[in-house]
Formats: sequence, structure tokens, C-alpha cells
Amino acid sequence: MVITPMRPTIALIGGQGLMGQWFKRFFESQGLEVLVADVDTPQTSQEVAALADVVIISVPIPKVTEVAREVAPHLKPDAALVDLTSVKQRPMAAMMAAYPGEVVGTHPLFGPGEGSIEGRIVVLCQGRGERWFHWLKNLLTQAGARVKVTTATEHDRIMAVVQGLAHFMLIAFGTVIRDLGVSPEDLEEFSTPTFATLHNLTRHLLSQDAKLYACIQLQNPANRIVLRALEGAVADILYFIQRQDADGLVRLIEEIK
Amino acid sequence: MVITPMRPTIALIGGQGLMGQWFKRFFESQGLEVLVADVDTPQTSQEVAALADVVIISVPIPKVTEVAREVAPHLKPDAALVDLTSVKQRPMAAMMAAYPGEVVGTHPLFGPGEGSIEGRIVVLCQGRGERWFHWLKNLLTQAGARVKVTTATEHDRIMAVVQGLAHFMLIAFGTVIRDLGVSPEDLEEFSTPTFATLHNLTRHLLSQDAKLYACIQLQNPANRIVLRALEGAVADILYFIQRQDADGLVRLIEEIK
Repeated sequence: MVITPMRPTIALIGGQGLMGQWFKRFFESQGLEVLVADVDTPQTSQEVAALADVVIISVPIPKVTEVAREVAPHLKPDAALVDLTSVKQRPMAAMMAAYPGEVVGTHPLFGPGEGSIEGRIVVLCQGRGERWFHWLKNLLTQAGARVKVTTATEHDRIMAVVQGLAHFMLIAFGTVIRDLGVSPEDLEEFSTPTFATLHNLTRHLLSQDAKLYACIQLQNPANRIVLRALEGAVADILYFIQRQDADGLVRLIEEIK
Repeated sequence: MVITPMRPTIALIGGQGLMGQWFKRFFESQGLEVLVADVDTPQTSQEVAALADVVIISVPIPKVTEVAREVAPHLKPDAALVDLTSVKQRPMAAMMAAYPGEVVGTHPLFGPGEGSIEGRIVVLCQGRGERWFHWLKNLLTQAGARVKVTTATEHDRIMAVVQGLAHFMLIAFGTVIRDLGVSPEDLEEFSTPTFATLHNLTRHLLSQDAKLYACIQLQNPANRIVLRALEGAVADILYFIQRQDADGLVRLIEEIK
């Protein structure tokens, strides 16, 4: 039986990105040593991967496959390969294919603006093995995170709504406002509480990393069915509006209560 | 010159609806006498209209024309006919056509759940005449409301975004979630701050009067151009997703920042 080191060493590949930096501070606050590799660090990805017990890939979703292949041959045989991305099926399949040892998928459901992990949700998906999965789950839970364990498929199915649909709506909302050329002053002066909240959510999303939000739209295979449902819903609502069918629209609204 | 009575009498037609009740309490809190007519009140609309200086129609948007025609012949010649609806072009045109005296359009940008008018926005549109318009503007301003004066056309143009588009998005969001059958527990457990806010806005909207929200979609002529822009935006975003064109989607997101 292999004993889990009390103070494992963490390697963060892509550790200079915002979430990488966030988790570097988090692991260090837990008393752990964190080695960071990024494009301009003295140590390479392979070097830090060879020295660590838990190797965490914190790179944009489309780069996970390439990075997993690069580092996997250098991992210690009882180390774990972990990712930190917003979708789970593709990155986990890539890690499982690249590395024969323990694999854990994680998705922190918060952005790098959060001060603490207290009360924040982190999704964990078990790829292969149990040791580091349990270690990570305990560490996060003891630090106050709400850890949710599920499969990669189930994660992506739910996140296609929670992230895919929600972000799509806000990007569309921002696009329409820009396309119509309504002045920010008018929108501010004639705002309702609902509009103000929606507009703030949109501005918050747009102030963040556009590449990440594009990836969340493109890289989750479950988005397809959600977006088809959205096209259907938009068409249904427009149908009643175009026919000035108040009763039909009232029925549609009441059915989703 | 006609002197504005210091304490004019208010008639609220449809005064037992939620907004009617809200404004009854508001005008009474300002020391004014309020006469209420509704389907089951002892006094009819015509009777209260004949006794009042300011006759406020607080009925669903499609009923404004009919009610304006019913009460207009009974108004005192120096009274004002006022509405309280969420769109302005059609209701004001109906009041102007029915009544030759003073006409004021109002749209309180808040719901009947608000405790006070303090800081809330009320849009005023001048139909015909100035006396009661200024009286109402002063009363609302002194009570702490943020009064915005504009034309009916400009009101509807901005509200097609602030209400038409915002509500459409939330109704579509609720429809997709219902159609996909994702369980409320899953959405709760795997929620992000953005999703939680959007979901709460949707539930808040759906908990209110479906007929009002249907009217806001159907009765604003400016919604048409907004909804066409929405169809265009949805198609643009889907175009990049379907082609897995990350750069195109990043460009689209960055352009609306």
C-alpha cells in the first residue's frame, strides 16, 4: 500500500494564469509547496511535473491535450494528473489517454476574483484511482469549499445550462444592445432593477477573459442540445409575439412557472 | 388662468390591481383623497371620473382604449387623464383620442413589491397640457422619485431593450431549463454566481403577473426591431459555435466590451 505524503508537492502547469495564481496562493495557504511552470518560468512543465505528487494543468481548454502529452511521461508513477478546466469530458479523456496513473478532473465554479474558497463550489470528477482524489476532496472540504462529486458527462450536461446557456444569453444580450446603439446614458436613466442586474452580469462577463468564455461555448459537447432548445424557445416565444397572441404567450409563461 | 387645487382628488380606475393599490397608498400618504373604481366597487368608473381632478387608468394595457372611451365623457373639463402602463405610444394615443383635455402618460419603473417611491424611477410623458403634468412631476419628485421626462416614442424605444429584451431573455431562459428537464437540485448544487443571479431573476419574473409580461412583449411596437436584432445576435453566435471558430467568437465577445 502506498502512503499519501502528508505534505505532497504540487506542480501548477500554466501557473501564471489568473486561476493558476489563485490556486498557487490557495495551496500555499494550506502549507504546501507549489512549483510553477509557465511560458517564461525558469523550470519547464516537464521539470516541475517530475518533482511533484499532484500535477495540475491550468491552461486553456484546447491546450490540455497537448500539455497532458508533454508532461505525462515525466510524472512519478504514483503522482496524479489533475486539470482545472470548465468542461470535463474532453480534458479528462485527454489526461486519461496521456497518463496511465491517477487522474482527477476539477472545475472550480468561481472566478479568480474570489477572496476565499469558503462556501465556493468545486466539482470533482474521478478519472482513475482514488488516493489523490480523496486527498484533494478532503483538502478542499476542510478549507471550506462545497465539493460536488460527479461524472464528466453529468458535469458537462449540467454546465451546458449553468454556464453554456447562461453565458450565451448574456453575450447575446450584450450583442443586441451594441447592435441597436442605445446609449449607456439612456439605459442607465431608464433602468429597472431586473434590467440593471442583467446588464451588470453582462458587463461583468465581458470584462473577463473572452477566450475562456469562447472555450466554454465551444468545448462542451452538451451545449449542442441546450442551444437547440434555446433556438426552439426563441422561436416559440416569437411565434406568439408575431401573431399578437396574448393568450398563447400567457400560457407559455405560466407553463414554465 | 385656472388654479391647480392644492389638494386635488384622485380617481384610480382599476384601483384594486396591485399597482392601483400601491398608488392608492402612495397618494393617500401624500394627504390626497383617492376614489377607487374597479369591477366590484360601489362606485363605477364613470362616477369616480366625474368627481376627480386627476383620473388615473390602472388597467392592463389592452384595456386602456376601452376604459379611456368609457370615462372620458364624464371627466371635468379641467381634469387630467393619466395612465400607469408599461408602454406609452398606444395607451397615450388612445387617451388623446378619447379625451380633449389634459393627458399625461406615466410608467413607474418598479413593481408593487417596492416599499417606497424613494429613489425609484417614474417616466412621465406629456400628452396634452401642462398643469397636471407639472403638478404630478412635482409631487413625485418631492416624494423622492427619480422622474424622467421623455416622449412616448423614445420611452418605447428604450423600454423595448430595458423591458422587452430583458424579459424575453428571461422567459427564453426559463423555457429552455423547463424543456431540458434539468432538475432544480442539480441547478442549485452546481450553480455559479452568474447562473444563480440569472435564475433568480427568471423565477422572480415568473412569479409575477404573466398577463403583464405578455403585454409588455406584445404592446410595444419598438420590440419588433429589438427582437430582430436578437435573432441576428443568436444566429451570429451560433455561427461561430457551429463552426468551432474560437477566434471568431472571441472577436465577437471583444467587440461588445
